[in-house]
Amino acid sequence: MLLDDLDGPDDLRTLGPDELVALAAEMREFIVQAVSLAPSGHLGSNLGAVELTIALHRVFDTPRDILLWDTGHQTYPHKILTGRADGFDRLRQAGGLSGYPNRAESEHDWIENSHASTVLAYAHGVATALSLSHDDRRLVAVIGDGSLTGGMAYEGLNNLGLSGRRVVIVLNDNGRSYAPTRSLLSDSITKLRLDPRFTRQRARLGRALVSMPLVGNWAERSLESAEAAVREYLEPPPFFEQLGIRYTGPIDGHDLPELEWALRQASAWDGPIVVHVLTQKGRGYPPAEADDEKHLHDVSGFDPDTGRKVVTPPAGPSYTATFSKALLAAAEADERIVAITAAMPGSTGLLPFQERFGDRFLDVGIAEQHAVASAAGMAMLGLRPVVAVYSTFIARAFDQVNLDVGLHGQPVVFCLDRAGITGDDGPSHHGVLDLALMTKVPGMTVFAPSSPAELEVMLGEALSISDGPSCLRWPKTPGPAAATEVGSGLNARKARVGDGSVAILAVGKLLAAALEAAEVLADRGVSATVWDMRVVKPLDQAMLLDAAGHGLVVTVEDGIRSGGIGSQVVERLAALAESRQSPPVLVLGTPDAYIAQGQPDQILAELGLDGAGVAAATTKALVAAGRLD
Amino acid sequence: MLLDDLDGPDDLRTLGPDELVALAAEMREFIVQAVSLAPSGHLGSNLGAVELTIALHRVFDTPRDILLWDTGHQTYPHKILTGRADGFDRLRQAGGLSGYPNRAESEHDWIENSHASTVLAYAHGVATALSLSHDDRRLVAVIGDGSLTGGMAYEGLNNLGLSGRRVVIVLNDNGRSYAPTRSLLSDSITKLRLDPRFTRQRARLGRALVSMPLVGNWAERSLESAEAAVREYLEPPPFFEQLGIRYTGPIDGHDLPELEWALRQASAWDGPIVVHVLTQKGRGYPPAEADDEKHLHDVSGFDPDTGRKVVTPPAGPSYTATFSKALLAAAEADERIVAITAAMPGSTGLLPFQERFGDRFLDVGIAEQHAVASAAGMAMLGLRPVVAVYSTFIARAFDQVNLDVGLHGQPVVFCLDRAGITGDDGPSHHGVLDLALMTKVPGMTVFAPSSPAELEVMLGEALSISDGPSCLRWPKTPGPAAATEVGSGLNARKARVGDGSVAILAVGKLLAAALEAAEVLADRGVSATVWDMRVVKPLDQAMLLDAAGHGLVVTVEDGIRSGGIGSQVVERLAALAESRQSPPVLVLGTPDAYIAQGQPDQILAELGLDGAGVAAATTKALVAAGRLD
Repeated sequence: MLLDDLDGPDDLRTLGPDELVALAAEMREFIVQAVSLAPSGHLGSNLGAVELTIALHRVFDTPRDILLWDTGHQTYPHKILTGRADGFDRLRQAGGLSGYPNRAESEHDWIENSHASTVLAYAHGVATALSLSHDDRRLVAVIGDGSLTGGMAYEGLNNLGLSGRRVVIVLNDNGRSYAPTRSLLSDSITKLRLDPRFTRQRARLGRALVSMPLVGNWAERSLESAEAAVREYLEPPPFFEQLGIRYTGPIDGHDLPELEWALRQASAWDGPIVVHVLTQKGRGYPPAEADDEKHLHDVSGFDPDTGRKVVTPPAGPSYTATFSKALLAAAEADERIVAITAAMPGSTGLLPFQERFGDRFLDVGIAEQHAVASAAGMAMLGLRPVVAVYSTFIARAFDQVNLDVGLHGQPVVFCLDRAGITGDDGPSHHGVLDLALMTKVPGMTVFAPSSPAELEVMLGEALSISDGPSCLRWPKTPGPAAATEVGSGLNARKARVGDGSVAILAVGKLLAAALEAAEVLADRGVSATVWDMRVVKPLDQAMLLDAAGHGLVVTVEDGIRSGGIGSQVVERLAALAESRQSPPVLVLGTPDAYIAQGQPDQILAELGLDGAGVAAATTKALVAAGRLD
Repeated sequence: MLLDDLDGPDDLRTLGPDELVALAAEMREFIVQAVSLAPSGHLGSNLGAVELTIALHRVFDTPRDILLWDTGHQTYPHKILTGRADGFDRLRQAGGLSGYPNRAESEHDWIENSHASTVLAYAHGVATALSLSHDDRRLVAVIGDGSLTGGMAYEGLNNLGLSGRRVVIVLNDNGRSYAPTRSLLSDSITKLRLDPRFTRQRARLGRALVSMPLVGNWAERSLESAEAAVREYLEPPPFFEQLGIRYTGPIDGHDLPELEWALRQASAWDGPIVVHVLTQKGRGYPPAEADDEKHLHDVSGFDPDTGRKVVTPPAGPSYTATFSKALLAAAEADERIVAITAAMPGSTGLLPFQERFGDRFLDVGIAEQHAVASAAGMAMLGLRPVVAVYSTFIARAFDQVNLDVGLHGQPVVFCLDRAGITGDDGPSHHGVLDLALMTKVPGMTVFAPSSPAELEVMLGEALSISDGPSCLRWPKTPGPAAATEVGSGLNARKARVGDGSVAILAVGKLLAAALEAAEVLADRGVSATVWDMRVVKPLDQAMLLDAAGHGLVVTVEDGIRSGGIGSQVVERLAALAESRQSPPVLVLGTPDAYIAQGQPDQILAELGLDGAGVAAATTKALVAAGRLD
């Protein structure tokens, strides 16, 4: 095996053409095996980037030259080639190899933020720094066609064009991001004519143009620019060049010699240049090649021979599936309902809606800001938009939620999946800020369902609010296996009646931890009251009054402790007491730190946010207060 | 006067050409007078939009047809033409006419968010809603060339192009946003050839192209597209058309008949279309026409005859001016320091830096996300970037602050001007969220200077932090007139020693209110301890311990109360007390509501955040606790 002898990019640079082809095949097999064994992983995008990654490390003198990846879930080949193949047996597991670039793993890694479309801003910053320090290292930024739908990519192109600084931008174009890419620009870039006869035609036409009276005399125009004009007639004009960035391509992303030639040419260009590379998602692995939506994008558990998913019976009902069905039912009854997503129709559960109500469904690309502000526009004209994104991504559109929707009092419903601790994807995918952010928006109602059944009830409630925005947030992990009671309206629900010693107020899925903790406490003779907060904005006054009558109040949330829901409870209890002393409050939540990858419930346990942890913290507080021995 | 008889757009539609010219002149005079008398106002952009606004209201059947303005500070002509001329005597004053569109004022107004680049998202939403409800109203969105540098504008164009829905996009191009527009795209759009001879040349060239063998046979190409190709040779190709949006222009934005003709043509187009209008900022008022940077952009107090500013002696030293000088001095001593702004070099105090260190200065356009992420890239290569923006705008880049800078532990210094209550600009310009947001970023150090002298000390401190980001935030209003003491390091400073009955912990400029309150309380026999918190993240443990020994703790901040600094103090004090009871804490801050325009210190007083208000609230709490009669 060639892979076995490969310690880093230097070894790669000595291989011959046939060896490289063999290496690519070995890498593909390795990736399919590794991902099939991992708890989860990205497959198609990594299979598509094998040759590109080999070419990049051969043409550029990495890690001296700087190689930046956008989003980063396509860096398995990069990890394999930079000495990390051995780590794949613990891919995306706690303490193991990250599914994204990670600076602690390798000097080859620079960007750990898995949010899309940022790489050109980094590149602009790095190029500026290299230039100011007269550093001759070369710089490459790899960005996918999907990421090009995000406004930051355009801001980056605009500023790189303006700077004129050297950077090779590799546009890794597989024709879709997660879903098929939402942009006419992709079509426009991709529909290029490669027929060699055009090269001759171009030259002839160019000469013809220059020989025309007025036109030929046009001072600043040369034969070269005339040829460019003709090229633009034959091929759609390069979008990038209007932003001051040279364009070259398209290049076959699986033809190594062609790739290397194109990258070498581009690296000699004294300014920003795009190399447009066409790759095939899932390349070389038939089940992934044929994968139309995202079934094999971020995958967990499949048979490497067939690509078929290994179906494990779920531990409980899925919040996402419940949302999917409940929204469909609501939309059947109310034609004002429209659904909006930002490049994630599958994982947010909107595919059935898209299929049933195509004209009422909108995928805006990786453009959360646009998703939110366009929802405001729709709501102004009487529609009832539901914006479904991951919790972590709503942070990218906070200003739009606050001003375009909130300030205008528009009834937009935000549905945040993957809230709280999400797991394998690591620090930039956890949804621990949504509660703190969404509760800062005046007039926003924020629901945190503790079960899929509650989600269904709350979606109906949210859709009935007509004078302002609302938000529901739920975890990726399944809901309680046993049926649970549900509440109603904007009320909290008392889930367990206690003896007045301690009240535990729980947010969303952590209700289960609170109830477990109550059982543990019961064994010690403490009968805890447990509230399912249900609605974290506005806080239920009845719940607060009840809690104030307890000897100790404990709040539990899977969001940041400082400035989250618990600290708002503390402040409200203090205000209730009108400067007399209110009961002590123990606030439990996630710490002021970036949280690494791992299994969600294992991470929660480590943070003391499972039943045992909540019980232990409560017990300690009761002991400290002299209420328990 | 024609203006006197004008009650709304209907009256406008009956005027003849000469009357319209006279009306435009009257409107300009009216605007210059009104702005010169107002506490502050936007001048140049409104003078430039007079004819455009007249044409829009004549061609479109407003308010039935929907007219959307981006940013909105250029809507004085729109307000005059929609029956609001009388309101200008209370422009931008509390309870008076807003300086932006305002739905409560008129059915002609739709968007109140003054943050730039959002209008195309609204337009996409409105167009979708119109189409779904088979509503035939026409839709126009007006966007400036500066707003086109923001990523949201591109997301909007992309989605509008994809939708194919009807919308007239008016590109109001005055060649600069606040500062000269930072984009090659503007050059590319603007450098168009208007020579009529080209029309004939185009046709001839088109025929020549079509007659060429291979080319002419290219099936999907017609004579029309050949002519388009030649046009692209003679004129830079239209950026917009690659995104699926038809382009027309440029149109002289001060030639009413031409404008009306172009808008009428465009409104007949069955899809999205850009009408590129060239306007002159300050048009018709020589002092504003000659205004190169933003002296007459957002102006307060000037002589209408000369355009000269009426110089009123400042009530105290300016934070912005202090920052400007301190940064310059720091940059002289440390060549790693670079300064980045988002289209606001003037008002953030960076012009002297730009002049002195041109190559270390970067204006990225209205692109806060890019500003922040490119700063991360610069810091990775060893530079020390200082990002200077308004407090309200950092909310647009929160995700980038958190992940691109924070997660990567990069030493970027965020300098937030206009923090707290800013005044005349209204709800979307107040900076009441920055404290809550920036303290959510792990590893971030947040400074709140209570005086310009403190700002200088803290900037040095922030620049000395090498392992993570930091943030300074200060108000627009001047600092204390008398010299004040300063603190050091990350410590809070005890500004007044009291008798243990009450500790007031103050954030930034509200230290003055806390000290005033202490004087009032002293008259009632209560000697309050006052702390200048200085650093709101991390909170100074010594200050918290001292506060915990008081009978009552009061926190005072000019940011949101719920989930702000005060609620973090409450939570920390509760944790300190380890479940024994901690002193009651009274948290004072801005409410969970959008705050209207007015004079900053008047608004603060109304919110109970001046000396009298803090004293009253403290007294009430002491009385309630039985510690005062």
